[in-house]
Amino acid sequence: MKLVYLFSELDEVEKAVGGSWEEVRGLLGGKGANLAEMTRLGIPVPPGFTITTRACIAYLRRGERLPRGLWKQVQEALRAVESQTGKKFGEPGNPLLVSCRSGAKFSMPGMMDTVLNIGLNDETASGMIALTADPRFVYDSYRRLIQMFGSVVLGVPDEPFEEVLATYRQARRVASDAELAAADWEAITQEFKELVRTHTGREFPQDPQEQLRLAIEAVFKSWNGKRAVDYRNATGIPHDLGTAVNIQAMVFGNMGSDSGTGVATTRNISTGEKVIEGDYLINAQGEDVVAGIRLTKPIAQLAEELPQIYQEFLEICRKLEQHYREVQDIEFTIERGKLWILQTRDSKRSPRAAVRIAVELAEEGLITREEAVLRVTPDQVDFFLHPQFEPRAKQAALEDGRLIATGLNVSPGAAVGVVAFDADLAEKWSKEGKGEGDNKEKRVIMVRPETKPDDVHGMLAAQGILTSRGGRASHAALVARQFGKPAVVGCAALEIDLENRLMRVNGRVIKEGEYISIDGTEGQVFLGEIATMIPDIKDPYLMKLLSWADEFRRLGVRANADYPRDAKRARDYGAEGIGLCRTEHMFFEEERLPLVQKMILAKDAEERQRYLDQLLPFQRADFEGLFRVMDGLPVIIRLIDPPLHEFLPSYEALVRDVTKLRLAQRVPELLRVENPSKEDQALLEEVEKAGNGDLAAGIRKLLPEKERLLEAVEKMREANPMLGLRGVRLGIHMPEVTSMQVRAIFEAACKVAKEGVEVHPEVMIPITSHVNELKEQRAVLEEVAKRVMEEAGLELDYKFGTMIEIPRAAITADELARYAEFFSFGTNDLTQTVFGISRDDAEAGFLLEYQHKGILPNNPFATLDTTGVGKLMEMGVKLGRKVRPDLEVGICGEHGGDPASIEFCHRIGLDYVSCSPFRVPIARLAAAQAALRGKGLKRKED
Amino acid sequence: MKLVYLFSELDEVEKAVGGSWEEVRGLLGGKGANLAEMTRLGIPVPPGFTITTRACIAYLRRGERLPRGLWKQVQEALRAVESQTGKKFGEPGNPLLVSCRSGAKFSMPGMMDTVLNIGLNDETASGMIALTADPRFVYDSYRRLIQMFGSVVLGVPDEPFEEVLATYRQARRVASDAELAAADWEAITQEFKELVRTHTGREFPQDPQEQLRLAIEAVFKSWNGKRAVDYRNATGIPHDLGTAVNIQAMVFGNMGSDSGTGVATTRNISTGEKVIEGDYLINAQGEDVVAGIRLTKPIAQLAEELPQIYQEFLEICRKLEQHYREVQDIEFTIERGKLWILQTRDSKRSPRAAVRIAVELAEEGLITREEAVLRVTPDQVDFFLHPQFEPRAKQAALEDGRLIATGLNVSPGAAVGVVAFDADLAEKWSKEGKGEGDNKEKRVIMVRPETKPDDVHGMLAAQGILTSRGGRASHAALVARQFGKPAVVGCAALEIDLENRLMRVNGRVIKEGEYISIDGTEGQVFLGEIATMIPDIKDPYLMKLLSWADEFRRLGVRANADYPRDAKRARDYGAEGIGLCRTEHMFFEEERLPLVQKMILAKDAEERQRYLDQLLPFQRADFEGLFRVMDGLPVIIRLIDPPLHEFLPSYEALVRDVTKLRLAQRVPELLRVENPSKEDQALLEEVEKAGNGDLAAGIRKLLPEKERLLEAVEKMREANPMLGLRGVRLGIHMPEVTSMQVRAIFEAACKVAKEGVEVHPEVMIPITSHVNELKEQRAVLEEVAKRVMEEAGLELDYKFGTMIEIPRAAITADELARYAEFFSFGTNDLTQTVFGISRDDAEAGFLLEYQHKGILPNNPFATLDTTGVGKLMEMGVKLGRKVRPDLEVGICGEHGGDPASIEFCHRIGLDYVSCSPFRVPIARLAAAQAALRGKGLKRKED
Repeated sequence: MKLVYLFSELDEVEKAVGGSWEEVRGLLGGKGANLAEMTRLGIPVPPGFTITTRACIAYLRRGERLPRGLWKQVQEALRAVESQTGKKFGEPGNPLLVSCRSGAKFSMPGMMDTVLNIGLNDETASGMIALTADPRFVYDSYRRLIQMFGSVVLGVPDEPFEEVLATYRQARRVASDAELAAADWEAITQEFKELVRTHTGREFPQDPQEQLRLAIEAVFKSWNGKRAVDYRNATGIPHDLGTAVNIQAMVFGNMGSDSGTGVATTRNISTGEKVIEGDYLINAQGEDVVAGIRLTKPIAQLAEELPQIYQEFLEICRKLEQHYREVQDIEFTIERGKLWILQTRDSKRSPRAAVRIAVELAEEGLITREEAVLRVTPDQVDFFLHPQFEPRAKQAALEDGRLIATGLNVSPGAAVGVVAFDADLAEKWSKEGKGEGDNKEKRVIMVRPETKPDDVHGMLAAQGILTSRGGRASHAALVARQFGKPAVVGCAALEIDLENRLMRVNGRVIKEGEYISIDGTEGQVFLGEIATMIPDIKDPYLMKLLSWADEFRRLGVRANADYPRDAKRARDYGAEGIGLCRTEHMFFEEERLPLVQKMILAKDAEERQRYLDQLLPFQRADFEGLFRVMDGLPVIIRLIDPPLHEFLPSYEALVRDVTKLRLAQRVPELLRVENPSKEDQALLEEVEKAGNGDLAAGIRKLLPEKERLLEAVEKMREANPMLGLRGVRLGIHMPEVTSMQVRAIFEAACKVAKEGVEVHPEVMIPITSHVNELKEQRAVLEEVAKRVMEEAGLELDYKFGTMIEIPRAAITADELARYAEFFSFGTNDLTQTVFGISRDDAEAGFLLEYQHKGILPNNPFATLDTTGVGKLMEMGVKLGRKVRPDLEVGICGEHGGDPASIEFCHRIGLDYVSCSPFRVPIARLAAAQAALRGKGLKRKED
Repeated sequence: MKLVYLFSELDEVEKAVGGSWEEVRGLLGGKGANLAEMTRLGIPVPPGFTITTRACIAYLRRGERLPRGLWKQVQEALRAVESQTGKKFGEPGNPLLVSCRSGAKFSMPGMMDTVLNIGLNDETASGMIALTADPRFVYDSYRRLIQMFGSVVLGVPDEPFEEVLATYRQARRVASDAELAAADWEAITQEFKELVRTHTGREFPQDPQEQLRLAIEAVFKSWNGKRAVDYRNATGIPHDLGTAVNIQAMVFGNMGSDSGTGVATTRNISTGEKVIEGDYLINAQGEDVVAGIRLTKPIAQLAEELPQIYQEFLEICRKLEQHYREVQDIEFTIERGKLWILQTRDSKRSPRAAVRIAVELAEEGLITREEAVLRVTPDQVDFFLHPQFEPRAKQAALEDGRLIATGLNVSPGAAVGVVAFDADLAEKWSKEGKGEGDNKEKRVIMVRPETKPDDVHGMLAAQGILTSRGGRASHAALVARQFGKPAVVGCAALEIDLENRLMRVNGRVIKEGEYISIDGTEGQVFLGEIATMIPDIKDPYLMKLLSWADEFRRLGVRANADYPRDAKRARDYGAEGIGLCRTEHMFFEEERLPLVQKMILAKDAEERQRYLDQLLPFQRADFEGLFRVMDGLPVIIRLIDPPLHEFLPSYEALVRDVTKLRLAQRVPELLRVENPSKEDQALLEEVEKAGNGDLAAGIRKLLPEKERLLEAVEKMREANPMLGLRGVRLGIHMPEVTSMQVRAIFEAACKVAKEGVEVHPEVMIPITSHVNELKEQRAVLEEVAKRVMEEAGLELDYKFGTMIEIPRAAITADELARYAEFFSFGTNDLTQTVFGISRDDAEAGFLLEYQHKGILPNNPFATLDTTGVGKLMEMGVKLGRKVRPDLEVGICGEHGGDPASIEFCHRIGLDYVSCSPFRVPIARLAAAQAALRGKGLKRKED
C-alpha cells in the first residue's frame, strides 16, 4: 500500500481516493493537501512529501511500530526530493535539510508538532559553514534543531534550554538572542547537546536518518497525546482519523543579497483596494520580518531590487487569487535568486475591506453574488454603523495599560468624554460644556450604577453610557442600543461612590469630570482619551452588498422604533416597517410624566379620564409622525407594557425622605447636612421651597404629601414586577388606558390618511397569557376603532395581534390565533420566563458564572436558546398557523438583530424580524445568509 | 302521535323511546320522568300527566300554535285524573285543582315556571268554601292563582300584587300575611282581579279550561324566554330540547285533623345514622313547615298521631331508598287520611353523614364499594381534618352581622382568638396568656399585612393566621397549610395600623387583644368569639372508606413534610413517603438562622465552610428523624431553594435604620420618639445596648455595622427574586452548600440504616432549567455520597432527581432524564413562569379581578391550568419517559392536594402526588376517584 506521496503526486492521490477533495484532505491532512495543490498549480513550493494518515493509524494499531514498507517509501521520496533540490540528505558537501510537521484533516492548532532543520549534525553543520560562510546562522539553526528535537521527540522540558540562552544573554549583557555572536551559538549548541544527554541519558542523534525516523514517530504518537485527545473531545473531532506527516526541504532567505523573505496580501486588506500589499527583507529569515528588528521594505520596492522575482511573484499572486477565489495572504522566501512560496491562506481583513473585496470579487466574476453576500459577516457590517477608535490609538492605549475594566458589550461603538455621575449633569455638560473659558468639553460619558427611565435625557445627551450593574437587557442596554449610543454595562469592577462623585476601579480613582473612553463593541473601559473615527454607512460597496442581500432573503426586516426620528433612520437603513413601537416610552417624556403620574394616582375613574384626555394629543402626535415616516409600510404599535410603579418615584427614595422628615420634625436644622449627598441636597431644597425658606413649615407641608405618595407607591409595589400587573393585565385593569391609546392610534391614522399617506396600523397586546385577555381587549379596540373611523368618515385596514412572550401564549397559540391576526415573539421576556431568569439580576451575575463554568454555551439573552425558547417558538408558529394559515409572525426581541437567532427565525418560518434601527443592515445581511444557507450554500469557512 | 302521558304510563313511554332512561327523561323531562317512576313503584303520587317535550318543540315550530291533537289528548288525560281523584275539573261541587309546572331534560332552576291551583274561579271557590268551611284557605289559594297566573301567563309585574298585600298588612297593623283574616283575603282576591284587568285590559279568565290552556302555552313559550336562553348558553344545554309540562292534581294538607304535611330524610343527615328524621304539622300546608311559624313535630311522633300513615310512610321510605340506592329527602302531604308523596330527591347531608351513609349503603349491599368511594367528595373528607365552627353558632354570627370581611380561603378550619399584630406577641400570649389573673386568654389570631420566615414562631403558636396581603401561595398560606393552621390571607378590606396596634375594617376598629374568629374553609373573618368543634379523623367510617379508596387508586400519595413531627402525621394519615422535604425551612429555626446569616456574609470560602460545618449537625439530625419516621418509605429531600437574601434582615428596615442613625448623629436624643413604633423602639433599644446607655456612643458603634450589613443586603437584592439566584443556581454558585447538605443527608441515612431502619433517600435539585446544571450537581453529589458511604462502610440505594418547575425543564425533559432518576413537578413555580404571574403580587390582586371578569375560569394556583401548565407537564412526562422508561414522576406543588388537579395527574400517568399532611386523606380519595372515573365509573351527579 502506498503510504507516502510526493507533493507533486496529487493526481495520483485523487485517483486513489476517488477524486473528492474531502478524501484527499482525509488522507494527506489539510497542510499536505494544500502543499500538493500549490505544487500542481505550478507554484514554486519547496519540494517534499506527505506520509499519509493511514500510515499513522497503522503505526498506532501496530503498537507504535512503523508499518511495513513505510521506511522504504520514505527513502524513495527523500531521494526524489534530493534530486528535485540537487542537495543530499546527510551529505556534508551540500546537505539537504528538511522540516517535519504534523497535519491532520481538521486544523488542531493546539497539537501541531514541528521539527525544523532535520539533517543537521556536527558534520553537515561544518559543511554548511563552508558553504554559507555564516557560522552564526548555521549554529543558530543547529541549536534550534536540538532544542525542538529535544522537546518534541525526546521529551526534554523547554525551560533548561531557555535558561542557557538567558545565561548567555546576561553574560554578554544583551537583550535579545539576535545580538549573540557566532561563537556564542556554537557554545550554546554544545550546551544543548549536553542538556539532551543529561535529561535522556543518550546522545543527540547525529544520524540524519535516525533524526528523521524519530521525528516522524513523535508526530504519529502526538495524535494520542493528552493535549490532542482533549482538543478533539472539546471540538468533536473523531479520534480515529490519525495525522499525516509532512517532510519538506528547508529553504533559507539569509544566503546573501540574492536571498530574502517576505509576506504579502493580494489586495489591500485595510481598504480592500486591488493592490498587492506587503513587506520584505533581503538576506533575512522569516522571523526577522515578523520580529520587526530590521526595518522592512514595502513590497513594491522589490520591483526595483529584484524585478524578475517581483514579476514572478505578481503572477503567482494572481494565480493563487484566481484559484482560491479569495484574497490570499502569502509567505515567500527567495533563496539565491529562486522564489519559493511557503504558504498561502485566505487573508484576514478589515470590515471595510471585507465588503469591498466581496463586492469586487463578484463583479470580477471570480465569485457569485450569493458568495459575496456569504463572505461578509454581520459583525463586519456593524462596523459601519458606529464610531470606532482609531486602530493605532487603541493599540497604543492597550500597550500603555490604560484598559482598566471590562463589562458587557451591550451597544457597539466607541465613545470618549468626561465622566458625569448623573443625568442632569450629563445633559448640562453636553449642552454647555464642562469647565470655563474656550476649551469647554461637551463630550460626556454618563456613568451610573444602573439607569432608570428618568435618566434618559442624560443618556441621550451623552456620548456613551457606562454602568456597574445590569445585564444585556437592562434599561441602560436597551436604551443605548435603541439610540445607537455606545454602552458598557454590568461592569462590576467599578465601585461608584455617588456621594463623593468618584469611582474606584481596581485601586484607581476616577473623579467626575475626568476623561474615559469606552468601547461598546468589546465592552472595554479605558482611562483618558482615545482618538475615534466614524465609518460611513453610505459606503457604496456596502450599499451594493446589502441590495444583493435583499434579493436573496425571504425574511422581512422591520425596526423597533418609538419616535419618528428613529423610524426615519430605520427606513434609511432599509427597514420595511415598524415591528415594535413601545408606546410607554412616550410617557416618560418630560412634559408628559407628571400627567402620567397624576393619571396613575387618580382617586377615581373620572379623574383618571381627565388626565388620559390630556395625554391623548401627545400620543396622537407621536403616532402621526410614525405613520408619515412609514408611508406605505406596516407600523406595529404595542399598548402600554410596564408596571405602573415604573412611572412613579422610587420607593426607596420615598422611604428615605419620609424617615428623614419625620425625624427632623423636632430639629429641622438637621436637614442641613455637612457633606450633603445629592439626595440630601434635593430634599433640603424641596423643603425650603415648600416652606418659603422656613424649614419647619416646609416639613409640615411636605411630610404629609410624601407620606401619601409613599403609601400609594407602597400599594403598587410588587415582589416580582416582571411577573406583575403589566401589559394586557393593565389594559384589563384600566380599560380606559387601552381606549385612550387605541383612540390616539386611530385618530392619528385617520388624520394622516386624509393627507394622502398610506397607513397600515397594527395594534399589539403585550404579556398575553390567556385567550380571554385578547378577546376582551379586541372588543375594546374594535369599538373605539369603529367610533373613530366613523367620526373621521373613513375606513382603514388594520390588524389586531399579540406579543408571544409568556410560555402559556406559545403553548396555547392555537387559541390566541382565533383572535390575533399577527404574532410577535417577545423573546426577551420569553427567555426570562422559559428559563425562570430575571435578566436584570442575572445577566451581570450568575449568567456570567454559568457561561464561565460551561453550564450555558452562551448568553441566552444575546443568542436565542433554540433548544428551549426556540422549541416553544416553533410550537407557537405551528399551532397559530394551523388555526389561521395567513397569520403574520415576527420577532421583536433583542434576538431579532442577532445573526444566529435570525437564522433560526428563518428556519422556523417567521415572516420578519424586527430590531433596533442600528441593527437593520445587519439583519438584512443575516437574513440573506440564512436563506442562502437554507439552500445549501455555505460560507467558505463553514 | 302521542303527546301526553299519564304518570302511570311509564311502561308505554319506555316502549315508545326504546327503553333508555336517558330517552325517557328527554321526552318527559326530569320532573315528569321522576313522577312517573314513583307512580310505577306504587308510591302514592297525586295523579297527573306529562305533556312531552315533543309537543313543546312542535308548538314552537308551528309559530306558537298547539300541535294538532294535543288538546284532545290533554282532555283525555284530565278525564283520567278526574277518575283517579274522584274530583272534577271546574265542577263547583267537588272541584279538581291542578298545578302546571315546566320540566326540561336538564334541570334549569332559573326558568321553571309554575302555576298552582288552576281550576279555581269564583264558582269553584264558593264550592271549595262549602266543602272545607275554610274561606281563608280558599281565598288565599285563589289569590295565589291570580297572582301566579298574572305573572307567568299574562306578564303582569309582581310588584303591584305585593303592594296590595303590603297595604293590607299596614291597614291591619300585622307583620305577616298569615295574620290576615279571611275577609281580607277575599278583598285582596278582588283587588288582584282588578289588577289583572288594569294591566292586561282583560278579565282574569274564569274558565278553568282556558286557565289550563294558557298556562300550558306559557310554559312552552318560556323555553325561548331570555332567562332560559341565557341559562342554556351559560351551561351548554342544547336549545332544541324543549320543555315538558306536568299537570298534577293539587292535594291539601290543611283540610282538618286527618290532614297534614311534612318533610323527612330516610337517614339522619347530620350523623348518617340509619334513622328516619323529619318534621311534620297536622292541618297545615307545606309552606307552614318551611316558614317555621308553627312549631313542627318530629316525625317519630306521627307514629302515635297517625300510626297507619306512619307505617305506610316508613315502607315508602324503605322502598325509595332501595330504588334510588341513596338516602332520600321526601316531601309528603296527608289529605283527609290519605298519604301523598309530592317529591323525593337525593338528600343533602353533612360531611360526617356522607361518609357513614356511603359506607353503610355499601355494606348493606345497596351500592358497590366503588360507588361508595365516588359518593363522598374530597371536601367532605377535608372536614374531618380541621376544627369547625358549631354550625348554629356560625349561623347566629352571620345573622348578627358579625361577618366583617372576606379574603382568600387558603388553609381550612375555624379558629378563634385575640388579635396579635406581631409574632413575638402572638407567641407570648399563646404561652403566657393575655391579660391578668385567672382568665388569661391563650388563643391568639396572628394578624399581619403579610408574613415572613421570621414570623413562623408566632404562626406556630397562634390558632389561626389572618393577613391583608398575599395570595394562595404566599408565605402565610404555605406555612399555614403546612401546619394545618386555619388561615385567611389577602383580606384587602383590612387596614392594619401597626403603629397604633389596631386594624380598620369598613369603618370598624379592632384593637390588639380583641377577639376575632376566622373560617379558613370559607375565607371569612368574624367579630368576636364563635364556638368551635373538632371532628375526628379516626372516624371508623372514614377509615374504612379510605381503605377502600386505597384499593382502587393507581396514584401513590406522599406528603410534603420538613420535620419529623409532620412526617409522623403524614404517615398516620396514610402517606406512602415524603414527596418534598424543604431543607431551607430548617435554616430558619431560631438557633440556626444566625449561623446561616454568617455563612451567607462570609468574606471567603474558608469562613463560609466554618459556618457550614456548624450547620451540618442540625441538618443531619433533622434528616435522621425523617428517615426514622419514614422507615421503609422513600424520602425526597430538596436542596436549598430560596434566594439568600430571604435569610437576611429586610432591606427596607435597614434603609430606615441607617437613615435614622445618620440623621441622629448630631442629635442622638431624636431616637427617643414620642409615640414610638415598634421599629423605633427596637432601634432605640439596640442603640442603648450598643452604647451601654450612651446614645451617641451607641450610634457611633451601630451605624457602621448597619451600613456594612445594608451594603451586603443591597448587593444581594434582586429586582425579581422569584427569577433570581436561587435553587440549583445557588448550588452551583456555592457548591460547598450542596456538599454540606448532601453530606448531612447521607450521614443521617447511614446512621439510621445502621440502627436497622430501611432508608430510601432521594435527593432533589430545585429550579433546574438546563441539563448541565443537573450534570454538575450530580457529580458533586456522587462524590460526597460515595465518600460518606465509604466512611460508614455501607452502600445505600438512593436516587438523584430534579424538580420540574421552570418551563425549560419541561421542554427539555428528555435531556434532563439522562441525569435525573425522578422528576417532581413543582406546579407552584411552574404556574408562575408559564403564566408569567407572580403569585404573591397577583393572587390577591389582578387574579381575583380576572376571575371576576371571567378572563380566567379559576385560580390557576389552586386548580391546575391543564390547557397551559398541564400541557407542558404532559410534554415533560412523555419526553422524560422516552429517555428513561422507569423514570419516577410526581407532583409536589400545592396542586398535589387539589382533587381536580389530582385527576389530571392520574390521567397523564404520574406515579404519585405529594401534598401537605393534612391533604393526604383527601388525595387518597381523589386519586381513587380519578382511577374509578378513568374506568368509566361516574359519581352519581356527574
